[in-house]
Amino acid sequence: MYNPELDFRAAVPGMAALGVIRTPFLHAKGTPIQVAAAGNTQGVVEVYPEFAEGLKDVAGFERIWLIYLLDRASAPQLIVRPYLDDQERGVFATRSSARPNHIGISAVRLLSIEQNCLFVEGVDILDGTPLLDIKPYVPAFDHFEVARTGWYAGKSVHGATADERFEAQDAIERDS
Amino acid sequence: MYNPELDFRAAVPGMAALGVIRTPFLHAKGTPIQVAAAGNTQGVVEVYPEFAEGLKDVAGFERIWLIYLLDRASAPQLIVRPYLDDQERGVFATRSSARPNHIGISAVRLLSIEQNCLFVEGVDILDGTPLLDIKPYVPAFDHFEVARTGWYAGKSVHGATADERFEAQDAIERDS
Repeated sequence: MYNPELDFRAAVPGMAALGVIRTPFLHAKGTPIQVAAAGNTQGVVEVYPEFAEGLKDVAGFERIWLIYLLDRASAPQLIVRPYLDDQERGVFATRSSARPNHIGISAVRLLSIEQNCLFVEGVDILDGTPLLDIKPYVPAFDHFEVARTGWYAGKSVHGATADERFEAQDAIERDS
Repeated sequence: MYNPELDFRAAVPGMAALGVIRTPFLHAKGTPIQVAAAGNTQGVVEVYPEFAEGLKDVAGFERIWLIYLLDRASAPQLIVRPYLDDQERGVFATRSSARPNHIGISAVRLLSIEQNCLFVEGVDILDGTPLLDIKPYVPAFDHFEVARTGWYAGKSVHGATADERFEAQDAIERDS
């Protein structure tokens, strides 16, 4: 059914890395699987100087969305067995990195900004990850009460870390 | 300072549209500026059949993130005057569509799924927008209490709609 060779890409123009996210995590194994599992782990978002002017007023926000490329994830899989479950799930019902387009989002706490560097807390991201966007976290836009949370209901993410299941083979070999 | 000709794009592989988002909004002017302003406006996310297998288990979630390409937005501007303000702000301190990479995110309410179509409520998105990703909205990952919301503090988004300020000129001409 799924044919990754099918080319729907013509409609999506090329994207640019706007910077790089520096974190303590070199390998998927041991990386917190979400911001909620990352505690006070700190990282630095280095925005390329060409884009730094767009950081004006960002310091006023307690939390920001980082949108980034999951550049060391394995090829997309439409059915995955996520970290927090022992069942196979549709990839769009999970936050697995093995997803089409490999886009990740994390609402991290913003500690400070110095020139083009954002110091952040709660990183669940691999070191060297390409940054695609930064947005302010605004409760009116992002903060919703929900009663139904699918298969995540009752799962606890606290302290949960990743393993190599969604890591590209060449990234694993490069790491070893 | 900002030179859109600089090519950082080599590091970001091409992305594919995974589907198309159908909504009642043909033009930026009059489109709700956020989910919170969209009320019960309904839309349909048509996932291309090749990716439909990844929708397994999505129906269990009350709300989902749509990640999409703001394909009719104007060229990136690092400084913008956002809809809710009369001051110029850094684009990364706003949710303006005139941002590098033109990535939009919206946490919409999921009403139902029929085959490869997701019926959703609260759309603040133009008709025909290319879909880049779907993720489940999970409070543990997405729902944070924040005290500081920068220049958005005290602004109300209810009933706010867009105008053509961030729309590409050719999209405006095509519309007229």
